[in-house]
Amino acid sequence: MSMASKRHAITLDDIRSAEQRIADHVVRTPAITNEVISKRLGCQVAFKAENLQHVGAFKARGAVNAVMSLSDEAARRGVVTHSSGNHAAALARAAKLRGIPAFVVMPENSSPIKIAAVRSHGVQPVFCGPSTQQREQAAAELQQQSGATLIHPFETPAVMAGQGTVALELLQQISHLDALFVPVGGGGLLAGILVAIKSLRPEIKVFAVEPEFADDTARSLAAGSPQPPTRYDTVADGLRTGVGDHTFPIIQALVDDLFLVSEESILSAMRSIAEDAHLVAEPSGAVAYAGLVENAERFAGRSVAVIISGGNLNFGDCSLGRNRHVMSCPP
Amino acid sequence: MSMASKRHAITLDDIRSAEQRIADHVVRTPAITNEVISKRLGCQVAFKAENLQHVGAFKARGAVNAVMSLSDEAARRGVVTHSSGNHAAALARAAKLRGIPAFVVMPENSSPIKIAAVRSHGVQPVFCGPSTQQREQAAAELQQQSGATLIHPFETPAVMAGQGTVALELLQQISHLDALFVPVGGGGLLAGILVAIKSLRPEIKVFAVEPEFADDTARSLAAGSPQPPTRYDTVADGLRTGVGDHTFPIIQALVDDLFLVSEESILSAMRSIAEDAHLVAEPSGAVAYAGLVENAERFAGRSVAVIISGGNLNFGDCSLGRNRHVMSCPP
Repeated sequence: MSMASKRHAITLDDIRSAEQRIADHVVRTPAITNEVISKRLGCQVAFKAENLQHVGAFKARGAVNAVMSLSDEAARRGVVTHSSGNHAAALARAAKLRGIPAFVVMPENSSPIKIAAVRSHGVQPVFCGPSTQQREQAAAELQQQSGATLIHPFETPAVMAGQGTVALELLQQISHLDALFVPVGGGGLLAGILVAIKSLRPEIKVFAVEPEFADDTARSLAAGSPQPPTRYDTVADGLRTGVGDHTFPIIQALVDDLFLVSEESILSAMRSIAEDAHLVAEPSGAVAYAGLVENAERFAGRSVAVIISGGNLNFGDCSLGRNRHVMSCPP
Repeated sequence: MSMASKRHAITLDDIRSAEQRIADHVVRTPAITNEVISKRLGCQVAFKAENLQHVGAFKARGAVNAVMSLSDEAARRGVVTHSSGNHAAALARAAKLRGIPAFVVMPENSSPIKIAAVRSHGVQPVFCGPSTQQREQAAAELQQQSGATLIHPFETPAVMAGQGTVALELLQQISHLDALFVPVGGGGLLAGILVAIKSLRPEIKVFAVEPEFADDTARSLAAGSPQPPTRYDTVADGLRTGVGDHTFPIIQALVDDLFLVSEESILSAMRSIAEDAHLVAEPSGAVAYAGLVENAERFAGRSVAVIISGGNLNFGDCSLGRNRHVMSCPP
């Protein structure tokens, strides 16, 4: 296989440059092995805990890389994006680090905690409808008005390259690895990881995991070209977006397989990550693990890593039951 | 100050030996910085995430060190202990690693998840009343019957030394540190950490944090000798036990100060650890952070580390609200 060749939007060198560029501004997240889960599933399981990343998601990597890659002249005019949440907060944070303006379009059904995160970096989001088209149109208008550079949540090459640094760290952290599970929404994280892994260690299998309720990447792989989403109601809000035109060719060329997971399975994976791994995963952050759980028998005795892509979860009105040792909330 | 002198139950050398002895059997847990919490509290905050340790608590360290320190002859007769939970699971695990029997006494009000954890290592706990006296008596009987070695949850020197390895790692992980917050129940973790820190970096302030509802260490420091608990109902179930006769002299000699925290404050700290740091802390595991939150103004601009001592929390009948992005449970 010819991996990460020039025909793709990014190369291994882009990811290595990104690693240098973002080092001072991102968390080198831990790869955490788990005995209880490993015993239960019959394989050696490690979680790459991007929920412990700044802004609570891997998105901090791509956003910092994109913003720090801009020329001084371009940077001065600011950056603009559209995102259901974590990329929005990540871009607001990255822009603040460089001291430049950020314009952020968010779907009106974004989670309140993600809206609050954007505001915490001094940026007031502009709201729009949930479809890809509505998001892109609102961002394009803001871009025209401001002259800011569009930092797309997954199509911008510097964003994909930044997300790919997850894989470089993982290869340094886990010496023997057979398989890696990665969630796919727009495909930026998956594309970045695929280019890194298949360039350096092509024998490691990389599996995409996608909610059944957001199965556009599965349909795109079957059709041979990017297909739009048909619904926007998966609990995994970060994966409601359709796979990108620039990420898809990388995924199509390099991914080993794709697993679809049910809503039930995503919720159950979140719970296991909390109870057994003591980490908070948001629904999208638990999707890759759901893919492993549903297919564990295929990986018996193997060493597998699972990306927990984000951990931004609103505990709402929950309180902790006294002497009951449970999280409890009003119904 | 003469630190960690021979008059104490353990020395720095004991902790360094423990670090070697347990290295292959424990997680080198991450020290995780957090921008959101640091900004809110006005100091640089890092969490030493012992909730990500095997058995979900620092107790894995002391138990492995104690079991691996036994002679072959003593080991053959097994180990015995009493514990409200995490030490019980940790000892069962350590005994299994060495292939020896473990006898475990647990208070009958121990949390179900902690009882299940002991059973998962093939050990059936013996239940008793919640007072220190009841626990000690039941363990003594088992010890007499079996000839097993008592591995006390905090009084055994090898246990204290094992827990002290948390501090050795922390000093390697965080180059500049002004203060460290540590929960205190029986005092094994606190004593081990105090000996390590005050031997190597005496300028770092070490603060104990204790629930108001389990204030025996505060009263012991005021009285100059170990005082028994007066109640056993704090939500921080791991800290209901009284401070030890062997841990107390170390704490008395070396601790910089002790903070008491309310039940409300513990629950609020758990929630912030989940929402802002994306980690699951059990109530005892959130106590040290509650101590920092209540006293943050004293640490403005400083670099502080907080031990999250454990993460074993039962989510009971909780489910995750669809599209509400919250954990929800029946009331």
